[in-house]
Amino acid sequence: MQALTLSQGDLHFQKDYPSPKLEADEALIKVSLAGICATDLEIVKGYKGGFQGILGHEFVGVVAQAPDSSLIGKRVVGSINIGCNRCATCYQHGPEHCPNRRVLGILKKDGAFADYLALPQSNLFAVPDEVSNETAVFTEPLAAALRIREQIRVVPGAKTAVIGPGRLGMLVGQVLALDGTDVVMIGRGRRSLELPAKLGLSTGLTDDFNENTFDIVVETTGNEAGFALALKLVKPLGTLVLKSTFAGNANLDLTKLVVAEINVVGSRCGPFAPALNLLKRDAIDVNSLIDGEYKLTQAIQAFTHASQRGVRKVLLRP
Amino acid sequence: MQALTLSQGDLHFQKDYPSPKLEADEALIKVSLAGICATDLEIVKGYKGGFQGILGHEFVGVVAQAPDSSLIGKRVVGSINIGCNRCATCYQHGPEHCPNRRVLGILKKDGAFADYLALPQSNLFAVPDEVSNETAVFTEPLAAALRIREQIRVVPGAKTAVIGPGRLGMLVGQVLALDGTDVVMIGRGRRSLELPAKLGLSTGLTDDFNENTFDIVVETTGNEAGFALALKLVKPLGTLVLKSTFAGNANLDLTKLVVAEINVVGSRCGPFAPALNLLKRDAIDVNSLIDGEYKLTQAIQAFTHASQRGVRKVLLRP
Repeated sequence: MQALTLSQGDLHFQKDYPSPKLEADEALIKVSLAGICATDLEIVKGYKGGFQGILGHEFVGVVAQAPDSSLIGKRVVGSINIGCNRCATCYQHGPEHCPNRRVLGILKKDGAFADYLALPQSNLFAVPDEVSNETAVFTEPLAAALRIREQIRVVPGAKTAVIGPGRLGMLVGQVLALDGTDVVMIGRGRRSLELPAKLGLSTGLTDDFNENTFDIVVETTGNEAGFALALKLVKPLGTLVLKSTFAGNANLDLTKLVVAEINVVGSRCGPFAPALNLLKRDAIDVNSLIDGEYKLTQAIQAFTHASQRGVRKVLLRP
Repeated sequence: MQALTLSQGDLHFQKDYPSPKLEADEALIKVSLAGICATDLEIVKGYKGGFQGILGHEFVGVVAQAPDSSLIGKRVVGSINIGCNRCATCYQHGPEHCPNRRVLGILKKDGAFADYLALPQSNLFAVPDEVSNETAVFTEPLAAALRIREQIRVVPGAKTAVIGPGRLGMLVGQVLALDGTDVVMIGRGRRSLELPAKLGLSTGLTDDFNENTFDIVVETTGNEAGFALALKLVKPLGTLVLKSTFAGNANLDLTKLVVAEINVVGSRCGPFAPALNLLKRDAIDVNSLIDGEYKLTQAIQAFTHASQRGVRKVLLRP
């Protein structure tokens, strides 16, 4: 099958990569559409150093084989963490933090930038008919945005900002605005603020705000400057959510963290079922985030496109 | 009056410093005993750069003058934050995070290393007769330790560690052990672990533990290595409490913060009333923490003593 693989830090498009070998509980899924995420770009840059194999963890596809034959032919999305199902962490918290976990396209498990992928049946969620492939492919990052609402109490009306109006930031902003809260999307350039403004979110440039302005600040850029800005803008007793992959070290002044008693929350994967509900209800605009679609044969060009500043979602179609 | 002042970054013992001028709501307190805290040492090193005046914020004393004359002659301790009482933060949260606050011996307010200090009457708490001065002087840092229990849910039996068995760490460890939890005090040298072991706490050296061992880690050292160790030892989904003043920048790998969804909580001042209750009930051993007592005339020697490695509480008696 066709596949985009990473080996020795380089991307390779392969025409004849072996199809996934199924484990007993796994389904084989024919990938319909996949999305490139910031984590993919970080992995290529060297984060998670060791990853070798097929990249990609945002997808929608059709079940081709499954232990439960009623699933065959169903359109599905899939959660990306596969736990060992035998450790205390799996029993208590599920697979997301299992020390032996594999993660689709990220850790010890071939991913979605291919004709086929394999996932345990229990990771799959049927996509409602009303939700197109171009929308369903956003289920995974939308679930990640919803994770914030699992982790912290978001009080409607809290002064809220999202740093980085990018592919993930735009989902986070919309999710936080669902309850009527005025969410300010903060970017480095005016052009990056056009889409958030069009979607009815408030906007501002990085220098537009005084320190101690927001109750909740979500940092989605994954860079040191983004963290420093978030720490500046969050009010005493406020919450700073790190919704991004930080690669490498950051040089940070932690004085305010203690003196102002800031709560910093790292945030990763989230719940698929409510994400699909929101997409079905058309409550989140995801299609405006699409900046390009490439055939899988053009995957390397697609990565180049996705890594350009200001580009949001780039899709791959096998 | 006698006073230990900081000016231009240097400590000076002064014999004839002017007595505090009282504001309308303030009481004059004759200081009986005061304690040197890590924050005092940091201030001398340059943290809070601008502070000029009398240092000291841990004290017990006797009311000499007060708008409410029934207070005169009472033995008291006092909370250290003075808010403007006019801003939204004061109304919502009290004085601790008021942007216009003054803080006894720390920010725009002369402190306790003197014969007399002034504080608003409403900051004062009467000391029960059963509590000696040598015990009552620990009310402020014990309240700071209790602050953790205001901020996070501490589940009895949670795997809990405190990094730094020092003057504050020993209070934090005892506070976290109050509900029967096994608290591990982690230090760099075996000698530092003798007192925690004597007080019935578990102990370990910094290299004794695997990563991802503890549900809750409280970092009390205020240095980069302490933070890095805390981040290593905390389990996925765990809580890292920063209970110390970090001065300057730290170079930190934040990857785990996000991937393991760690919750980082900055923690500062806490509630005086329960601290006094615990001291009255003899539930916390504070007197074992005393490593020296000096007359105020010897305050500069006392600071030298307090800044030595392994030294816990040094007291000053005017």
